[in-house]
Amino acid sequence: MDDGATVPNSKYVAIFDEISTIGAASSEGVTRLAASHEDGVARGVFAEWMKQGGARIAHDAIGNQFACFDWVGDDAPWIFAGSHLDTQPKGGRFDGTLGVLAAGSAALELHEQVASGAVRPIRNLAVVNWTNEEGARYQPSLTGSAVFSGALPLDDALALRDGAGISLKDALAAIGIDGGKGAIPPSPEAYVELHVEQGRKLLEAGRRIGIVEGTWAARKTTVRWIGRAAHTGPTPMDDRRDALLAAAQGIAGFETVIAANYPLLHRSAARLVVEPNSPNVVVESATVWFELRGPDVTVLDAAGELALAAFEKAAADTGTHLEIVADVLRSPALMDVTLMAIVGRVAQSCNFQPETMRSVAGHDAVALQNRGIPSALIFIPSVDGIAHHPDELTEPGDVKAGLTVLTAALRHLVEGGFNAPRR
Amino acid sequence: MDDGATVPNSKYVAIFDEISTIGAASSEGVTRLAASHEDGVARGVFAEWMKQGGARIAHDAIGNQFACFDWVGDDAPWIFAGSHLDTQPKGGRFDGTLGVLAAGSAALELHEQVASGAVRPIRNLAVVNWTNEEGARYQPSLTGSAVFSGALPLDDALALRDGAGISLKDALAAIGIDGGKGAIPPSPEAYVELHVEQGRKLLEAGRRIGIVEGTWAARKTTVRWIGRAAHTGPTPMDDRRDALLAAAQGIAGFETVIAANYPLLHRSAARLVVEPNSPNVVVESATVWFELRGPDVTVLDAAGELALAAFEKAAADTGTHLEIVADVLRSPALMDVTLMAIVGRVAQSCNFQPETMRSVAGHDAVALQNRGIPSALIFIPSVDGIAHHPDELTEPGDVKAGLTVLTAALRHLVEGGFNAPRR
Repeated sequence: MDDGATVPNSKYVAIFDEISTIGAASSEGVTRLAASHEDGVARGVFAEWMKQGGARIAHDAIGNQFACFDWVGDDAPWIFAGSHLDTQPKGGRFDGTLGVLAAGSAALELHEQVASGAVRPIRNLAVVNWTNEEGARYQPSLTGSAVFSGALPLDDALALRDGAGISLKDALAAIGIDGGKGAIPPSPEAYVELHVEQGRKLLEAGRRIGIVEGTWAARKTTVRWIGRAAHTGPTPMDDRRDALLAAAQGIAGFETVIAANYPLLHRSAARLVVEPNSPNVVVESATVWFELRGPDVTVLDAAGELALAAFEKAAADTGTHLEIVADVLRSPALMDVTLMAIVGRVAQSCNFQPETMRSVAGHDAVALQNRGIPSALIFIPSVDGIAHHPDELTEPGDVKAGLTVLTAALRHLVEGGFNAPRR
Repeated sequence: MDDGATVPNSKYVAIFDEISTIGAASSEGVTRLAASHEDGVARGVFAEWMKQGGARIAHDAIGNQFACFDWVGDDAPWIFAGSHLDTQPKGGRFDGTLGVLAAGSAALELHEQVASGAVRPIRNLAVVNWTNEEGARYQPSLTGSAVFSGALPLDDALALRDGAGISLKDALAAIGIDGGKGAIPPSPEAYVELHVEQGRKLLEAGRRIGIVEGTWAARKTTVRWIGRAAHTGPTPMDDRRDALLAAAQGIAGFETVIAANYPLLHRSAARLVVEPNSPNVVVESATVWFELRGPDVTVLDAAGELALAAFEKAAADTGTHLEIVADVLRSPALMDVTLMAIVGRVAQSCNFQPETMRSVAGHDAVALQNRGIPSALIFIPSVDGIAHHPDELTEPGDVKAGLTVLTAALRHLVEGGFNAPRR
């Protein structure tokens, strides 16, 4: 897909290269956790870039950043475009960052065209950087977009704590975000997000542009096994209540039962917290974050019951006690069909044949769509489908394709050539 | 075993109560990790107590504390008694602390009797607090006694790092231990340690005093499964290399195969470190600390082979790579028979019929004995055998019995009524 000499526009390249260094360690990827020092630096660079291009910067109390182009007055409706600048630990350079900077780059181009009269907007445009999309430091993920869209109360979000016990409120304050600052635009008539695919479907189909029609559902279940601390040496085996053994049997049993009964579901256990985690003390408590993902809620429900039975069997076999800490079902989303059609026509007019596809992962566009904000999600290819890994890569030609389509779509939306989807 | 009104001597009770508050949170036990701030406070209280009683305080470069009673000149041989003041996270009050404070209490009593002429020593006495016996913060455990006895080079010990990456050298410096201070006594002619049993054998036998004749062997194996970071959502299941799934299957498989083939061995996996430990990233690396304990090295070797096969099967089944990070065999120790006989006769002269027994856990006395320093280990009962848990308890009557026997044994040893065991 790389067509070598073809590069995205120079504004995008310069800012992408700058942002990519923030939190980067050679060969270890980018670690820019939400509300960390590195996140704060990246926010500052983004804001400065947008401000110099003519935007007004604001942020709300959860730290969502808005680079606002108030072209047609406060009473006019708004279009949003963006994604997130936070990353996973040792994450890639493109996930999220691409979407924010491509939207910024498109906005700057449109802003110049508005000034020259080449573009005549009837809506304002804001580029948005949503807080803690990744959910690496704070769970649940998609925090900023969930607060903006009303899915998560602000106080609940601010009270989230990371693994070191630091609240999101305190972490935001440490990077200078203590309450909102500046006028925040109202809920937009449309939100558009460009993102890397994190899979191989576009590569396999030989397409540069994907239009997401909907997402898989996800069931995210956090469970804790409670045992009893004891000396790993003299304590008789029959007396032990080993929470790590329970978790191990639970994780292994979960994989076995889901693979056997629902092999097409995606499943994982990727976070585990053990107490006291000393080599000579039988583990007292082990907490595990499980995920099940699939297109169908009914299937996820049935699979979830099997998973729960596996967790309970692990507790029974080890004499430990099982607690369900959280069990959240994320419904499958259907993206806005009007916006899908607009983006599809725009892509074709730019000579790209778009691939209609589903997203397995959640994205801010999905969180907004689920709360009634009409949203579109555009994918471009990821080499080998690699995601959440330092080797994550999208070829320059594909980035350019995404930028081209995003810019054209935003022009179309701000100029008003569509009936605003029903809210 | 509690005979109510019977309490240990008042010196012991006061200092034990004081030390027990350092690192204590109500109902959460005592957290006084090696070379932590709390450990530093406890060391200071212990040193001050000993100094006021007439001791000279010294410490070596690994932080072992020596409260020295140089009764008969530098050229005379030495007797050591002690244990450790560090604890497990949320550990008990008695494990280790009892042995240091009981030895201190005995030493103060003997010091008064030396002054009055009632005791006529031909050997000096030092009360020793060994650094990082527990191995909770730094692995391996028994660090201070291993360095003193020459089993572990000082530089290797100082270079150990805790889970946060802080070296033992830096941690010791932070509590004021930067190199040795004061003259350290030479290797002693005998070392005596009083410790709580951490099992139920004394209670079941109806005895207050145990004399340890030897220990079980232990095989401590740390293994790491290496996978590949990837998004837990879109990444196809067949592409995943999930190190936490491997570790889970390894821990569960280890328990299954050892329980089936060697049910009498004690076994555990009690520490696990996962990277990056984010709910949305397939785990890239999982490191697990396993232990196997039993009386017979040949059996441990054979069981270890089965364990390794289980670890390798987990790697093969998950497409991950297995690394053996450490694999240490701790030979079973036989304690010094001359000292055992002396302590046994002393106990009988104090009207306690001692129980001869094995220790499953390692102790500083075992580390010293293994390096040719004649050592004796005296046990007193633990209620319900509870260890490494806030509920750990030894009844006052049993503490008093231990203090009585330890004091009498140390008097016997410093007065010279024995042929020093061969080195």
